[in-house]
Amino acid sequence: MQVLVLNSGSSSLKFQLFAMPEETIICAGVVERIGFTDAKFKFKSEHKNVETETKILTHKAALKLVAKHLLDKKEGVLKTAEDIKIVGHRVVHGGMHFNDTVEIDQDVKEKIKSLSSLAPLHNPANLEGIMVAETIFPTAKQVAVFDTAFLQSIPEKAYKFAIPNEFLTEHHIRVYGFHGTSHKYVSEQANKFLGTKESKIITIHLGNGCSMTAIKNGKSIDHSMGFSPLDGLIMGTRSGAIDPSVIFHLKDALGYSMKQINALLNKESGMLGLTGYSDLRDIELKASEGDKNCQLALQMNAYRIKKYIGSYATILNGLDAIVFTAGIGENSSLIRNLVCEDLDFLGITLDENKNNLRSKTIRTINSDTSKVKILVVPTNEELEIAKQSVSLFIN
Amino acid sequence: MQVLVLNSGSSSLKFQLFAMPEETIICAGVVERIGFTDAKFKFKSEHKNVETETKILTHKAALKLVAKHLLDKKEGVLKTAEDIKIVGHRVVHGGMHFNDTVEIDQDVKEKIKSLSSLAPLHNPANLEGIMVAETIFPTAKQVAVFDTAFLQSIPEKAYKFAIPNEFLTEHHIRVYGFHGTSHKYVSEQANKFLGTKESKIITIHLGNGCSMTAIKNGKSIDHSMGFSPLDGLIMGTRSGAIDPSVIFHLKDALGYSMKQINALLNKESGMLGLTGYSDLRDIELKASEGDKNCQLALQMNAYRIKKYIGSYATILNGLDAIVFTAGIGENSSLIRNLVCEDLDFLGITLDENKNNLRSKTIRTINSDTSKVKILVVPTNEELEIAKQSVSLFIN
Ligand SMILES: Nc1ncnc2c1ncn2[C@@H]1O[C@H](COP(=O)(O)OP(=O)(O)O)[C@@H](O)[C@H]1O
Ligand SMILES: Nc1ncnc2c1ncn2[C@@H]1O[C@H](COP(=O)(O)OP(=O)(O)O)[C@@H](O)[C@H]1O
Repeated sequence: MQVLVLNSGSSSLKFQLFAMPEETIICAGVVERIGFTDAKFKFKSEHKNVETETKILTHKAALKLVAKHLLDKKEGVLKTAEDIKIVGHRVVHGGMHFNDTVEIDQDVKEKIKSLSSLAPLHNPANLEGIMVAETIFPTAKQVAVFDTAFLQSIPEKAYKFAIPNEFLTEHHIRVYGFHGTSHKYVSEQANKFLGTKESKIITIHLGNGCSMTAIKNGKSIDHSMGFSPLDGLIMGTRSGAIDPSVIFHLKDALGYSMKQINALLNKESGMLGLTGYSDLRDIELKASEGDKNCQLALQMNAYRIKKYIGSYATILNGLDAIVFTAGIGENSSLIRNLVCEDLDFLGITLDENKNNLRSKTIRTINSDTSKVKILVVPTNEELEIAKQSVSLFIN
Repeated sequence: MQVLVLNSGSSSLKFQLFAMPEETIICAGVVERIGFTDAKFKFKSEHKNVETETKILTHKAALKLVAKHLLDKKEGVLKTAEDIKIVGHRVVHGGMHFNDTVEIDQDVKEKIKSLSSLAPLHNPANLEGIMVAETIFPTAKQVAVFDTAFLQSIPEKAYKFAIPNEFLTEHHIRVYGFHGTSHKYVSEQANKFLGTKESKIITIHLGNGCSMTAIKNGKSIDHSMGFSPLDGLIMGTRSGAIDPSVIFHLKDALGYSMKQINALLNKESGMLGLTGYSDLRDIELKASEGDKNCQLALQMNAYRIKKYIGSYATILNGLDAIVFTAGIGENSSLIRNLVCEDLDFLGITLDENKNNLRSKTIRTINSDTSKVKILVVPTNEELEIAKQSVSLFIN
């Protein structure tokens, strides 16, 4: 069965076509700069590797272009549009409505729309992708997989903010958490690897956005991102946690506008603000050349991850494994090393040689005597979306 | 030697007169509602217990009234104003200038003033107290003891926010921490009790304001309050840590003004926002009567403390003792119980009987098998200010 996974952003559309249950990728690509005359289109399959620049003004035009290449007589991968049985959509915000993957109907679309005020940059774009897919693949089942769903098991004492109750009950302000699809995927991989579902694990997703989840017996119980993806760890361009009074000070004492402060914390902070670079590879290189800001930023980044490991091990009241994933987590032996340094009190000790080996598969990097397993698990959100989408119609 | 300790707030002036080095209190009291015609004056010594309401318009008038009672021929405790050798002032914000107690000179006063933008409610009032004391006790040494000083040993990776560097270098935005005098005092008491200075301890100050400090070998290495006393734990009326994007949402989506949001987070949140009560005694009572909001708020409060214990044990990479102090920490066996529940992974187990005993002295409440000591240490910021002030001239 062929399953198309779509991730529709405000000006981009990413896609991957899977053969399921084989879990093989048939083709994948992206349309970027939708709305512009110099939009970029990339498409890669076994027999074809296209990169073009062309005018693509709408998401509909973008998906039509994708479909045209999928169905191309000579080099395409599908005979008819009906070959796609399921389209799985990544939806960022499921609010309190969705704690699992659902088939999309009118009610689901209305709920996704109603959650736009909680995710103004993402949900409208996700919804646009759904509506476009419905017209172009009308015979396929449309499925929504929410970034927040896996985190809906977090208990109230952990998701509620200490502000008056009506902000939760009336305005739905609470911790939602994000990257749920990735945390779910890598935690399940980890549990399979450990040979148990009864586990206490901490998943550490370090990409451009970074987040951590405490997971007990397969269910999330706490998470580092909050109401938005701004909170928690230090990220590529986001500050992560910061004393909220800094915002008042920036406004009242330093004269910044709220718009400026929002942009500052989301786009100019984090590793970029500390070092001038947002790509960790650049920062590691500069640090190795002696750049003090880069060295400190790496220390700060790892320090904050350590603190969350301690918090989560404590509320789990035990720890079987920590799991590194995503661009940085999978590839940066340096960050993993800094994070795991001096954690023997928690029973975490790294094997430096194993840590330095590069690999694309799931692996342990702890020392033989480490009580806690340290795993590196490549994440695959698209595959997880495909799997969850399929499982809706099989189980 | 007689040492007067002053804590001058925007509309109040608290005082205690100590005989040092005996550490006995000769008299103590407070002037409240300074600036009003119905200001309140309380004064208590061995022979005198005054409570009056009168017009007191300035801090100078307030301190004059205090001096008058101190020097009263019949019921006073001093012969002449010169009997007071040292006046120790509590100063909230010492910024990056002060990592220790100092004798006050013109330069110190200017620095305290220059830090007003970081503590607009406190530093100007503290400075006013200093200037008034200089005129009324001109022969006494004037000493400043900073709330922030003990926390200046926190390393950069812990005190720096992940925002562009110039906000630290030019605008001094960073973690300062507060309650330092209390954390220092109780940690020293704890170390004496443990018979060592080489210790890894976590001090938990739970009063109307709440904060925690990680202390290694007598030096603070991390702290839960941030740039202001708003961050970190859930407090009587303050939210503690909250995703900063909530502020943008309150403003942009819900139409609150920044002033309203500031008041909301500082004065209407925390335990008050969650339960309608800010005094923990009321909340404990209601919870015991079945009030669900109160039960949840207690759980949330303890849960957040647990998470900091885990963080700090991790960055200390070991833990000898946790120390409860201040109104709630010293008196609420319920909160201590909730905090210590299910912490055996960290080696923390409570003795419930010991925990339930009431006492005004330093004591352990851990089980005999607990690897980590759990201490209750009554705090005494005024005595600490007196001791530090004296030590300036003796060591
Ligand atoms: N070999 C590597 N060493 C260090 N960092 C790496 C390496 N490869 C990728 N990264 C980092 O991974 C991050 C992107 O992660 P990714 O998971 O692809 O991001 P996204 O959150 O956008 O999905 C970048 O900061 C990049 O520097
Ligand atoms: N017996 C008690 N049980 C529970 N809470 C108590 C008890 N006694 C005092 N408290 C709490 O202590 C808090 C005040 O602490 P305190 O250290 O005096 O505050 P401040 O920060 O103003 O110095 C209040 O919330 C009060 O409810």
